[in-house]
Amino acid sequence: MKIIDISWPITSDITTYKNKSDVQIIQTHSWETSVKRESQLICGMHTGTHIDAPAHFLKSGLTVDQLDLNSVIGPAQVLELSLVTNKITKQDLVNFNITAGAIILLKTSNSNLAANSLFEPNFVYLDSSGAEYLASKKIKAVGIDYLGIERNQPEHNTHKILFSAEIIIIEGLRLAHVAAENYELICLPLNIVGQEAALARAILIKK
Amino acid sequence: MKIIDISWPITSDITTYKNKSDVQIIQTHSWETSVKRESQLICGMHTGTHIDAPAHFLKSGLTVDQLDLNSVIGPAQVLELSLVTNKITKQDLVNFNITAGAIILLKTSNSNLAANSLFEPNFVYLDSSGAEYLASKKIKAVGIDYLGIERNQPEHNTHKILFSAEIIIIEGLRLAHVAAENYELICLPLNIVGQEAALARAILIKK
Repeated sequence: MKIIDISWPITSDITTYKNKSDVQIIQTHSWETSVKRESQLICGMHTGTHIDAPAHFLKSGLTVDQLDLNSVIGPAQVLELSLVTNKITKQDLVNFNITAGAIILLKTSNSNLAANSLFEPNFVYLDSSGAEYLASKKIKAVGIDYLGIERNQPEHNTHKILFSAEIIIIEGLRLAHVAAENYELICLPLNIVGQEAALARAILIKK
Repeated sequence: MKIIDISWPITSDITTYKNKSDVQIIQTHSWETSVKRESQLICGMHTGTHIDAPAHFLKSGLTVDQLDLNSVIGPAQVLELSLVTNKITKQDLVNFNITAGAIILLKTSNSNLAANSLFEPNFVYLDSSGAEYLASKKIKAVGIDYLGIERNQPEHNTHKILFSAEIIIIEGLRLAHVAAENYELICLPLNIVGQEAALARAILIKK
Protein backbone atom coordinates (compact mmCIF):
# COMPACT_ATOMS: atom_id res chain seq x y z
CA MET A 1 0.00 0.00 0.00
CA LYS A 2 1.55 3.27 -1.10
CA ILE A 3 0.56 6.41 0.82
CA ILE A 4 0.86 9.73 -0.98
CA ASP A 5 0.52 12.71 1.31
CA ILE A 6 -1.38 15.56 -0.36
CA SER A 7 -1.62 17.79 2.74
CA TRP A 8 -0.19 21.27 2.96
CA PRO A 9 2.73 21.34 5.44
CA ILE A 10 1.72 23.47 8.44
CA THR A 11 4.45 25.90 9.51
CA SER A 12 4.38 29.36 11.07
CA ASP A 13 5.16 30.84 7.63
CA ILE A 14 2.55 28.81 5.71
CA THR A 15 0.75 30.66 2.89
CA THR A 16 -2.52 32.01 4.24
CA TYR A 17 -5.62 33.30 2.45
CA LYS A 18 -5.00 36.93 1.49
CA ASN A 19 -1.87 36.82 3.67
CA LYS A 20 -3.75 36.88 6.97
CA SER A 21 -0.98 36.50 9.55
CA ASP A 22 -2.98 34.12 11.69
CA VAL A 23 -0.79 31.03 12.07
CA GLN A 24 1.58 30.55 14.98
CA ILE A 25 3.30 27.40 16.15
CA ILE A 26 4.83 28.19 19.51
CA GLN A 27 7.26 25.95 21.34
CA THR A 28 6.07 26.08 24.95
CA HIS A 29 8.58 23.53 26.33
CA SER A 30 12.04 23.02 24.87
CA TRP A 31 15.14 21.05 25.85
CA GLU A 32 16.78 24.23 27.09
CA THR A 33 14.34 24.57 29.98
CA SER A 34 12.43 21.29 30.24
CA VAL A 35 12.66 17.48 30.10
CA LYS A 36 10.31 17.43 27.11
CA ARG A 37 9.28 19.33 24.02
CA GLU A 38 5.77 20.73 23.72
CA SER A 39 4.09 23.15 21.36
CA GLN A 40 0.94 25.17 20.83
CA LEU A 41 -1.08 25.93 17.69
CA ILE A 42 -2.87 29.17 16.89
CA CYS A 43 -4.54 29.37 13.49
CA GLY A 44 -7.61 30.11 11.46
CA MET A 45 -9.78 27.07 10.82
CA HIS A 46 -9.12 27.44 7.05
CA THR A 47 -5.35 26.96 7.41
CA GLY A 48 -3.63 24.65 4.92
CA THR A 49 -5.58 21.53 4.02
CA HIS A 50 -9.09 21.85 5.45
CA ILE A 51 -12.71 20.95 4.92
CA ASP A 52 -15.35 23.60 4.38
CA ALA A 53 -18.76 22.56 5.70
CA PRO A 54 -22.02 24.09 4.42
CA ALA A 55 -22.26 26.21 7.60
CA HIS A 56 -19.41 28.32 6.15
CA PHE A 57 -21.83 30.03 3.73
CA LEU A 58 -25.33 28.60 4.39
CA LYS A 59 -27.15 29.77 7.52
CA SER A 60 -28.82 26.42 8.10
CA GLY A 61 -25.93 24.37 6.74
CA LEU A 62 -24.31 21.42 8.50
CA THR A 63 -21.25 22.06 10.63
CA VAL A 64 -18.04 20.13 10.00
CA ASP A 65 -18.63 17.57 12.77
CA GLN A 66 -22.01 16.72 11.22
CA LEU A 67 -20.57 15.68 7.85
CA ASP A 68 -20.63 12.03 6.79
CA LEU A 69 -16.99 10.93 6.61
CA ASN A 70 -18.00 8.44 3.91
CA SER A 71 -18.01 11.47 1.61
CA VAL A 72 -14.27 12.08 2.06
CA ILE A 73 -13.12 8.47 2.09
CA GLY A 74 -13.20 6.42 -1.10
CA PRO A 75 -12.40 6.33 -4.82
CA ALA A 76 -11.05 9.64 -6.04
CA GLN A 77 -10.10 10.95 -9.47
CA VAL A 78 -7.31 13.51 -9.87
CA LEU A 79 -8.16 15.64 -12.92
CA GLU A 80 -5.25 17.15 -14.89
CA LEU A 81 -6.06 20.86 -15.25
CA SER A 82 -2.56 22.29 -15.02
CA LEU A 83 -2.88 24.15 -18.33
CA VAL A 84 -6.08 25.91 -17.33
CA THR A 85 -5.57 29.61 -16.66
CA ASN A 86 -7.72 31.84 -14.48
CA LYS A 87 -10.70 29.57 -13.84
CA ILE A 88 -12.07 26.06 -14.32
CA THR A 89 -15.36 26.16 -16.23
CA LYS A 90 -17.82 23.51 -17.32
CA GLN A 91 -15.96 23.34 -20.66
CA ASP A 92 -12.78 22.27 -18.90
CA LEU A 93 -14.61 19.38 -17.21
CA VAL A 94 -16.96 17.90 -19.79
CA ASN A 95 -14.36 15.64 -21.38
CA PHE A 96 -13.61 13.80 -18.14
CA ASN A 97 -15.58 10.71 -17.21
CA ILE A 98 -17.09 11.84 -13.91
CA THR A 99 -19.43 9.39 -12.22
CA ALA A 100 -22.01 9.81 -9.48
CA GLY A 101 -20.57 9.40 -5.98
CA ALA A 102 -17.04 10.26 -7.10
CA ILE A 103 -14.54 12.39 -5.23
CA ILE A 104 -12.98 14.84 -7.69
CA LEU A 105 -9.60 16.47 -7.05
CA LEU A 106 -8.70 19.43 -9.29
CA LYS A 107 -4.97 19.53 -10.04
CA THR A 108 -4.02 22.96 -11.34
CA SER A 109 -0.93 25.13 -11.70
CA ASN A 110 -1.66 26.32 -8.13
CA SER A 111 0.23 23.24 -6.93
CA ASN A 112 3.44 24.69 -8.37
CA LEU A 113 3.42 27.59 -5.91
CA ALA A 114 5.67 27.10 -2.88
CA ALA A 115 3.86 26.11 0.33
CA ASN A 116 5.06 29.23 2.12
CA SER A 117 4.97 31.76 -0.72
CA LEU A 118 2.97 34.97 -0.56
CA PHE A 119 -0.73 34.50 -1.31
CA GLU A 120 -1.40 34.40 -5.08
CA PRO A 121 -4.56 36.47 -5.68
CA ASN A 122 -4.91 35.12 -9.23
CA PHE A 123 -5.03 31.46 -8.25
CA VAL A 124 -6.96 29.13 -10.53
CA TYR A 125 -10.47 28.60 -9.17
CA LEU A 126 -13.66 26.73 -9.97
CA ASP A 127 -16.29 29.03 -11.45
CA SER A 128 -20.06 28.74 -11.14
CA SER A 129 -20.49 26.80 -14.38
CA GLY A 130 -17.91 24.26 -13.24
CA ALA A 131 -19.58 23.95 -9.85
CA GLU A 132 -22.99 23.46 -11.49
CA TYR A 133 -21.57 20.80 -13.76
CA LEU A 134 -20.06 18.88 -10.81
CA ALA A 135 -23.36 19.21 -8.94
CA SER A 136 -25.21 17.78 -11.96
CA LYS A 137 -22.86 14.79 -11.85
CA LYS A 138 -23.80 14.15 -8.21
CA ILE A 139 -20.24 13.84 -6.93
CA LYS A 140 -19.82 13.62 -3.15
CA ALA A 141 -16.76 15.80 -2.65
CA VAL A 142 -14.43 18.11 -4.58
CA GLY A 143 -10.91 19.19 -3.66
CA ILE A 144 -8.71 21.94 -5.01
CA ASP A 145 -5.03 22.76 -4.65
CA TYR A 146 -5.35 26.23 -3.21
CA LEU A 147 -6.70 27.91 -0.11
CA GLY A 148 -10.00 28.76 -1.76
CA ILE A 149 -12.17 27.09 -4.39
CA GLU A 150 -13.43 30.44 -5.72
CA ARG A 151 -12.44 34.10 -5.88
CA ASN A 152 -13.96 37.41 -6.91
CA GLN A 153 -17.51 36.04 -6.99
CA PRO A 154 -19.37 38.49 -4.72
CA GLU A 155 -22.16 36.05 -3.88
CA HIS A 156 -19.76 33.12 -3.29
CA ASN A 157 -21.72 31.15 -5.86
CA THR A 158 -19.28 28.27 -6.23
CA HIS A 159 -19.44 27.46 -2.52
CA LYS A 160 -23.22 27.85 -2.40
CA ILE A 161 -23.86 25.70 -5.49
CA LEU A 162 -21.67 22.91 -4.13
CA PHE A 163 -23.04 23.09 -0.59
CA SER A 164 -26.63 23.13 -1.83
CA ALA A 165 -25.85 19.93 -3.73
CA GLU A 166 -24.42 18.40 -0.52
CA ILE A 167 -20.92 18.27 -1.97
CA ILE A 168 -18.13 18.58 0.59
CA ILE A 169 -15.34 21.02 -0.29
CA ILE A 170 -11.69 20.24 0.45
CA GLU A 171 -9.33 23.19 0.10
CA GLY A 172 -5.57 23.47 0.43
CA LEU A 173 -4.43 20.26 -1.24
CA ARG A 174 -0.92 19.85 -2.69
CA LEU A 175 -0.95 17.89 -5.95
CA ALA A 176 2.23 18.76 -7.91
CA HIS A 177 3.74 15.33 -7.17
CA VAL A 178 0.56 13.39 -7.97
CA ALA A 179 -0.18 11.81 -11.37
CA ALA A 180 -3.69 12.43 -12.69
CA GLU A 181 -5.01 8.94 -12.00
CA ASN A 182 -7.49 7.12 -9.81
CA TYR A 183 -6.78 6.59 -6.12
CA GLU A 184 -8.45 6.02 -2.78
CA LEU A 185 -8.71 9.29 -0.85
CA ILE A 186 -8.73 9.49 2.92
CA CYS A 187 -9.32 13.01 4.19
CA LEU A 188 -9.96 13.33 7.92
CA PRO A 189 -10.83 16.70 9.46
CA LEU A 190 -10.29 17.39 13.15
CA ASN A 191 -13.40 16.62 15.21
CA ILE A 192 -14.21 20.30 15.81
CA VAL A 193 -17.73 20.67 17.22
CA GLY A 194 -20.23 23.15 15.81
CA GLN A 195 -17.99 25.11 13.46
CA GLU A 196 -17.91 25.82 9.73
CA ALA A 197 -14.59 24.17 8.89
CA ALA A 198 -11.74 22.12 10.30
CA LEU A 199 -8.10 21.56 9.53
CA ALA A 200 -7.57 18.14 7.95
CA ARG A 201 -5.02 15.61 6.80
CA ALA A 202 -5.47 14.18 3.31
CA ILE A 203 -3.71 11.21 1.77
CA LEU A 204 -4.08 9.17 -1.40
CA ILE A 205 -3.70 5.40 -1.35
CA LYS A 206 -2.44 3.51 -4.37
CA LYS A 207 -2.82 -0.24 -4.01
CA MET B 1 -18.30 0.12 5.27
CA LYS B 2 -19.14 1.25 8.79
CA ILE B 3 -17.14 4.16 10.20
CA ILE B 4 -16.85 4.44 13.98
CA ASP B 5 -15.46 7.75 15.15
CA ILE B 6 -13.16 7.34 18.15
CA SER B 7 -11.97 10.95 18.28
CA TRP B 8 -12.44 13.26 21.23
CA PRO B 9 -14.88 16.07 20.32
CA ILE B 10 -12.98 19.38 20.32
CA THR B 11 -14.83 22.16 22.12
CA SER B 12 -13.72 25.18 24.13
CA ASP B 13 -14.56 23.26 27.31
CA ILE B 14 -12.83 20.02 26.34
CA THR B 15 -11.03 18.17 29.16
CA THR B 16 -7.37 19.16 29.09
CA TYR B 17 -4.32 17.57 30.70
CA LYS B 18 -4.15 18.76 34.31
CA ASN B 19 -6.88 21.28 33.45
CA LYS B 20 -4.62 23.57 31.46
CA SER B 21 -7.00 26.18 30.12
CA ASP B 22 -5.40 26.27 26.73
CA VAL B 23 -8.20 25.57 24.25
CA GLN B 24 -10.19 28.32 22.58
CA ILE B 25 -12.47 28.12 19.57
CA ILE B 26 -13.29 31.67 18.59
CA GLN B 27 -15.93 32.65 16.07
CA THR B 28 -14.26 35.41 14.04
CA HIS B 29 -17.11 35.90 11.53
CA SER B 30 -20.75 35.28 12.38
CA TRP B 31 -24.08 35.87 10.63
CA GLU B 32 -24.69 38.91 12.80
CA THR B 33 -21.86 40.85 11.18
CA SER B 34 -20.82 38.93 8.07
CA VAL B 35 -22.00 36.95 5.02
CA LYS B 36 -20.18 33.90 6.30
CA ARG B 37 -19.13 32.03 9.42
CA GLU B 38 -15.47 31.62 10.25
CA SER B 39 -13.56 30.46 13.32
CA GLN B 40 -10.12 30.27 14.85
CA LEU B 41 -8.43 27.56 16.91
CA ILE B 42 -6.02 28.10 19.80
CA CYS B 43 -4.82 24.97 21.58
CA GLY B 44 -1.97 22.91 22.88
CA MET B 45 -0.73 20.31 20.41
CA HIS B 46 -1.78 17.55 22.87
CA THR B 47 -5.47 18.52 22.81
CA GLY B 48 -8.04 15.74 22.48
CA THR B 49 -7.06 12.93 20.12
CA HIS B 50 -3.42 13.40 19.13
CA ILE B 51 -0.25 11.61 18.18
CA ASP B 52 2.88 11.86 20.30
CA ALA B 53 6.08 11.59 18.27
CA PRO B 54 9.39 10.48 19.79
CA ALA B 55 10.59 14.12 19.77
CA HIS B 56 8.20 14.69 22.69
CA PHE B 57 10.61 12.95 25.09
CA LEU B 58 13.69 11.91 23.08
CA LYS B 59 16.14 14.64 22.09
CA SER B 60 17.00 13.01 18.78
CA GLY B 61 13.53 11.57 18.22
CA LEU B 62 11.49 11.93 15.04
CA THR B 63 9.00 14.78 14.82
CA VAL B 64 5.36 14.08 14.02
CA ASP B 65 5.66 14.93 10.30
CA GLN B 66 8.49 12.39 9.98
CA LEU B 67 6.39 9.43 11.16
CA ASP B 68 5.40 6.70 8.72
CA LEU B 69 1.61 6.88 8.40
CA ASN B 70 1.58 3.14 7.67
CA SER B 71 2.04 2.76 11.44
CA VAL B 72 -1.33 4.38 12.20
CA ILE B 73 -3.33 2.86 9.36
CA GLY B 74 -4.21 -0.82 9.38
CA PRO B 75 -5.50 -3.73 11.46
CA ALA B 76 -6.16 -2.75 15.06
CA GLN B 77 -7.19 -4.69 18.15
CA VAL B 78 -9.29 -3.04 20.85
CA LEU B 79 -8.36 -4.68 24.16
CA GLU B 80 -11.04 -4.83 26.89
CA LEU B 81 -9.39 -3.45 30.03
CA SER B 82 -12.37 -1.69 31.58
CA LEU B 83 -12.05 -3.56 34.86
CA VAL B 84 -8.40 -2.63 35.33
CA THR B 85 -7.89 -0.09 38.08
CA ASN B 86 -4.97 2.30 38.47
CA LYS B 87 -2.58 0.95 35.83
CA ILE B 88 -2.20 -1.55 33.02
CA THR B 89 0.71 -3.89 33.69
CA LYS B 90 2.26 -6.75 31.75
CA GLN B 91 -0.02 -9.14 33.69
CA ASP B 92 -3.09 -7.41 32.27
CA LEU B 93 -1.83 -7.93 28.71
CA VAL B 94 -0.29 -11.40 28.57
CA ASN B 95 -3.55 -13.21 27.92
CA PHE B 96 -4.31 -11.27 24.74
CA ASN B 97 -3.05 -12.56 21.41
CA ILE B 98 -0.87 -9.63 20.35
CA THR B 99 0.99 -10.07 17.08
CA ALA B 100 3.96 -8.23 15.57
CA GLY B 101 2.94 -5.19 13.53
CA ALA B 102 -0.38 -4.80 15.33
CA ILE B 103 -2.00 -1.55 16.40
CA ILE B 104 -3.22 -1.97 19.99
CA LEU B 105 -5.97 0.23 21.45
CA LEU B 106 -6.40 0.11 25.23
CA LYS B 107 -10.06 0.44 26.24
CA THR B 108 -10.30 1.35 29.92
CA SER B 109 -12.77 2.91 32.32
CA ASN B 110 -11.30 6.28 31.26
CA SER B 111 -13.70 6.18 28.32
CA ASN B 112 -16.63 6.52 30.73
CA LEU B 113 -15.55 10.02 31.78
CA ALA B 114 -17.42 12.83 30.03
CA ALA B 115 -15.50 14.53 27.22
CA ASN B 116 -15.61 17.88 28.98
CA SER B 117 -15.29 16.80 32.61
CA LEU B 118 -12.56 18.04 34.89
CA PHE B 119 -9.24 16.27 34.43
CA GLU B 120 -9.12 12.95 36.29
CA PRO B 121 -5.67 12.71 37.92
CA ASN B 122 -6.14 9.01 38.69
CA PHE B 123 -6.80 7.95 35.11
CA VAL B 124 -5.83 4.39 34.16
CA TYR B 125 -2.41 4.39 32.50
CA LEU B 126 0.08 1.99 30.96
CA ASP B 127 2.96 1.28 33.31
CA SER B 128 6.56 0.45 32.40
CA SER B 129 6.04 -3.31 32.50
CA GLY B 130 3.08 -3.02 30.12
CA ALA B 131 5.09 -0.78 27.79
CA GLU B 132 8.01 -3.22 27.81
CA TYR B 133 5.67 -6.10 27.04
CA LEU B 134 4.14 -4.26 24.07
CA ALA B 135 7.64 -3.36 22.87
CA SER B 136 8.65 -7.03 23.08
CA LYS B 137 5.66 -7.87 20.87
CA LYS B 138 6.92 -5.42 18.22
CA ILE B 139 3.60 -3.66 17.75
CA LYS B 140 3.64 -0.53 15.55
CA ALA B 141 1.32 1.76 17.51
CA VAL B 142 -0.59 1.90 20.79
CA GLY B 143 -3.57 4.07 21.64
CA ILE B 144 -5.19 4.90 24.97
CA ASP B 145 -8.47 6.53 25.94
CA TYR B 146 -7.11 9.39 28.00
CA LEU B 147 -4.97 12.46 27.51
CA GLY B 148 -1.82 10.71 28.65
CA ILE B 149 -0.50 7.16 28.42
CA GLU B 150 1.35 7.44 31.74
CA ARG B 151 1.29 9.39 34.98
CA ASN B 152 3.44 9.82 38.08
CA GLN B 153 6.49 8.20 36.51
CA PRO B 154 9.18 10.84 37.05
CA GLU B 155 11.37 9.62 34.18
CA HIS B 156 8.43 9.22 31.76
CA ASN B 157 9.47 5.62 31.26
CA THR B 158 6.36 4.47 29.42
CA HIS B 159 6.83 7.07 26.71
CA LYS B 160 10.55 6.43 26.46
CA ILE B 161 10.22 2.64 26.28
CA LEU B 162 7.59 2.89 23.53
CA PHE B 163 9.44 5.57 21.56
CA SER B 164 12.73 3.68 21.79
CA ALA B 165 10.91 0.68 20.27
CA GLU B 166 9.62 2.92 17.45
CA ILE B 167 6.03 2.52 18.62
CA ILE B 168 3.78 5.48 17.84
CA ILE B 169 1.59 6.69 20.73
CA ILE B 170 -1.99 7.81 20.17
CA GLU B 171 -3.58 9.60 23.13
CA GLY B 172 -7.09 10.95 23.68
CA LEU B 173 -9.20 8.22 22.11
CA ARG B 174 -12.85 7.69 23.03
CA LEU B 175 -13.77 4.00 23.20
CA ALA B 176 -16.86 3.62 25.42
CA HIS B 177 -19.06 2.87 22.37
CA VAL B 178 -16.60 0.43 20.78
CA ALA B 179 -16.75 -3.34 21.23
CA ALA B 180 -13.42 -5.02 21.99
CA GLU B 181 -12.93 -6.54 18.55
CA ASN B 182 -10.69 -6.26 15.51
CA TYR B 183 -11.01 -3.29 13.14
CA GLU B 184 -9.08 -1.24 10.64
CA LEU B 185 -7.78 1.94 12.25
CA ILE B 186 -7.17 5.15 10.36
CA CYS B 187 -5.56 7.84 12.49
CA LEU B 188 -4.36 10.92 10.63
CA PRO B 189 -2.48 13.69 12.45
CA LEU B 190 -2.32 17.21 11.09
CA ASN B 191 0.74 17.75 8.90
CA ILE B 192 2.51 19.91 11.51
CA VAL B 193 6.17 20.38 10.56
CA GLY B 194 9.00 19.85 13.03
CA GLN B 195 7.03 19.46 16.25
CA GLU B 196 6.62 16.76 18.88
CA ALA B 197 2.91 16.05 18.43
CA ALA B 198 -0.14 16.89 16.35
CA LEU B 199 -3.88 16.87 16.80
CA ALA B 200 -5.45 13.98 14.90
CA ARG B 201 -8.70 12.37 13.80
CA ALA B 202 -9.08 8.65 14.45
CA ILE B 203 -11.72 6.31 13.08
CA LEU B 204 -12.31 2.57 13.07
CA ILE B 205 -13.59 0.81 9.99
CA LYS B 206 -15.69 -2.34 10.25
CA LYS B 207 -16.19 -4.00 6.88
